[in-house]
Amino acid sequence: MKPKSRIVNIPVYQPGKPIEEVKRELGLTEVTKLASNENPYGSAPSVQQAIAAELTQLHLYPDGGAVELTSELAASLGVTSEQIIFGCGSDEIIALITRAFLEPGDETIMADQTFSVYKSNADIEGAAVHEVPLKNGVHDLPGMLAQINDHTKIVWVCNPNNPTGTIVDEAELVQFMDQVPSHVLVVLDEAYYEYVVDGAYPQSVPMLSKYPNLVILRTFSKIYGLAALRIGYGIGGADVIKLINQVREPFNTSRVGQAAARQALRDQDFVKECRTKNREGIDYLTGHFERLGLSYFPSQTNFIMVDTGHPAMEVFQSMLSRGVIIRAGHHKYPTYIRVTVGTARENEIFIRALEETLQERTAAV
Amino acid sequence: MKPKSRIVNIPVYQPGKPIEEVKRELGLTEVTKLASNENPYGSAPSVQQAIAAELTQLHLYPDGGAVELTSELAASLGVTSEQIIFGCGSDEIIALITRAFLEPGDETIMADQTFSVYKSNADIEGAAVHEVPLKNGVHDLPGMLAQINDHTKIVWVCNPNNPTGTIVDEAELVQFMDQVPSHVLVVLDEAYYEYVVDGAYPQSVPMLSKYPNLVILRTFSKIYGLAALRIGYGIGGADVIKLINQVREPFNTSRVGQAAARQALRDQDFVKECRTKNREGIDYLTGHFERLGLSYFPSQTNFIMVDTGHPAMEVFQSMLSRGVIIRAGHHKYPTYIRVTVGTARENEIFIRALEETLQERTAAV
Repeated sequence: MKPKSRIVNIPVYQPGKPIEEVKRELGLTEVTKLASNENPYGSAPSVQQAIAAELTQLHLYPDGGAVELTSELAASLGVTSEQIIFGCGSDEIIALITRAFLEPGDETIMADQTFSVYKSNADIEGAAVHEVPLKNGVHDLPGMLAQINDHTKIVWVCNPNNPTGTIVDEAELVQFMDQVPSHVLVVLDEAYYEYVVDGAYPQSVPMLSKYPNLVILRTFSKIYGLAALRIGYGIGGADVIKLINQVREPFNTSRVGQAAARQALRDQDFVKECRTKNREGIDYLTGHFERLGLSYFPSQTNFIMVDTGHPAMEVFQSMLSRGVIIRAGHHKYPTYIRVTVGTARENEIFIRALEETLQERTAAV
Repeated sequence: MKPKSRIVNIPVYQPGKPIEEVKRELGLTEVTKLASNENPYGSAPSVQQAIAAELTQLHLYPDGGAVELTSELAASLGVTSEQIIFGCGSDEIIALITRAFLEPGDETIMADQTFSVYKSNADIEGAAVHEVPLKNGVHDLPGMLAQINDHTKIVWVCNPNNPTGTIVDEAELVQFMDQVPSHVLVVLDEAYYEYVVDGAYPQSVPMLSKYPNLVILRTFSKIYGLAALRIGYGIGGADVIKLINQVREPFNTSRVGQAAARQALRDQDFVKECRTKNREGIDYLTGHFERLGLSYFPSQTNFIMVDTGHPAMEVFQSMLSRGVIIRAGHHKYPTYIRVTVGTARENEIFIRALEETLQERTAAV
């Protein structure tokens, strides 16, 4: 059996370390996981009720086209149903876009560093990947523009960016879009859209009418608190969405995921409340970072990347031994860790563990 | 924007007509859907309880590797965890296999006709598809073997076959596998495995130790009654499974799907009961087909394909107007319809509608 040779050595995605595994390995009874940018306030209680109604219909296939959910979402966004595609998380939309558009000989451009799923999917399709370094943790749109040539098929803009939490603003994005040739698809990944409070953040959906080569990705996994159910979506011109749909499996989202997303969408009070609490968490964390003399990237998300000044993997291990799981191992930022904003109590636990870790590291040095 | 040219005109999968749509269009209050091979007895009640426990954890990502579920399934099958991969239905495993193995210049072999998702995925990857006609509704394994050449990457064997419901037996399969060159992957789709009662049906899992080029597909969507939750799996040698895993998205199954499948697997009494009732339904339906003088393919599944002797699309419409949704439109079988075995009451409704339809058609002729 001979697979495509290019897929054999693609690195496998490393998810955040599971709480149960850490408890077992280290004999800890309490573990705080701030590694996967999950919503610490869960999901809206009304969502659980909406799901309960589905439990007698588990034997029935979901509506493959997610017609009802799509229609409600379209109305709330001010677009048509033909402009929306749902996936098993926005991860799947990324995979579908690459499967529909990229082939050997094509090129694709993304930041370095950014969400790893763009590159793994481009690698699977055999496209050449150009990674353009971030500037101060922010996408370098002019630098990315300079990499575009006749072979370029897709440019990925993660906004806010994961793992740095930074944004490009509306003026920068418009200037960029105005210069991107129409043969190049721009995928604007807005997984953390609902967390943003900066007024300069682009309102991207209205831009769709001007740029038919723009596709926006959003998800119910983050502020809506439905990561467990795998439901995300893409928004774009009807023509592009139709092309992406050509490679979608007929039943790629679950009945429970669709029902949950429908209800979650209606409960915008929950979203607002989570955004407010998250911002309080950001203020708390950055206050302590400043007290500790640590620099960090300004975050518009529910995570922050902070420079510990020590090798991040060592900091990770030290935090782990104190029962706090965070992320490290970002190749461009070897002394930075990424922490998810938790509840007030989780944030306190994190700061205490970080402070102890830094004291220990400094003493060791 | 230029997609891969070959994906533009791939026909989009046509799912069974939704009940609500039929009610609305025809002004009917009762509609019987026997079109999607769903389990009319639902899912095991214990599964609903298992899901309820997950509803407070919707904000947490699922275990990407489905470690617990995989371990329980592996134990029940007598294989190792490394021999199993889970997907968003077995549909996704089909997509992953093609994405990992097929590229332009490759060839793949399947029956005509069979489950349409093999061909659509092979088309997406640009492989040449050789379709070998069924013989009396059964896979022609010697005919498929004769099509294998140096470019052949995958042979698909749907067993029991969808839409005919027929099987190839163990002796035929072993003879076939003994002759398939080791560079060719054989994908044995056993979505309806648990419905089979014929003692000659292959026990395929023990064959894996002899044939490293064999991959078996099964699902929780059929007899387990979990179509809504999108969870299926592949079983094969650890080497092949590892290759397929290379193109899997990190979180491709939901937390709810994993919990439901774990519990469903433990409740084998439900499976046995459904198999027994299904067989009673098959006997009831075939008894009436014989009384009506209709020929049909012998089914080892929860559906039957029967020759109405009239254009199937006309029969479909006539049945629809009587509130019964079935499947028609199989290009190789223009006078056959495919009906899912329902509850005793649904089967009676179907037979009544069929008989009325046949009388009407015969009078019209």
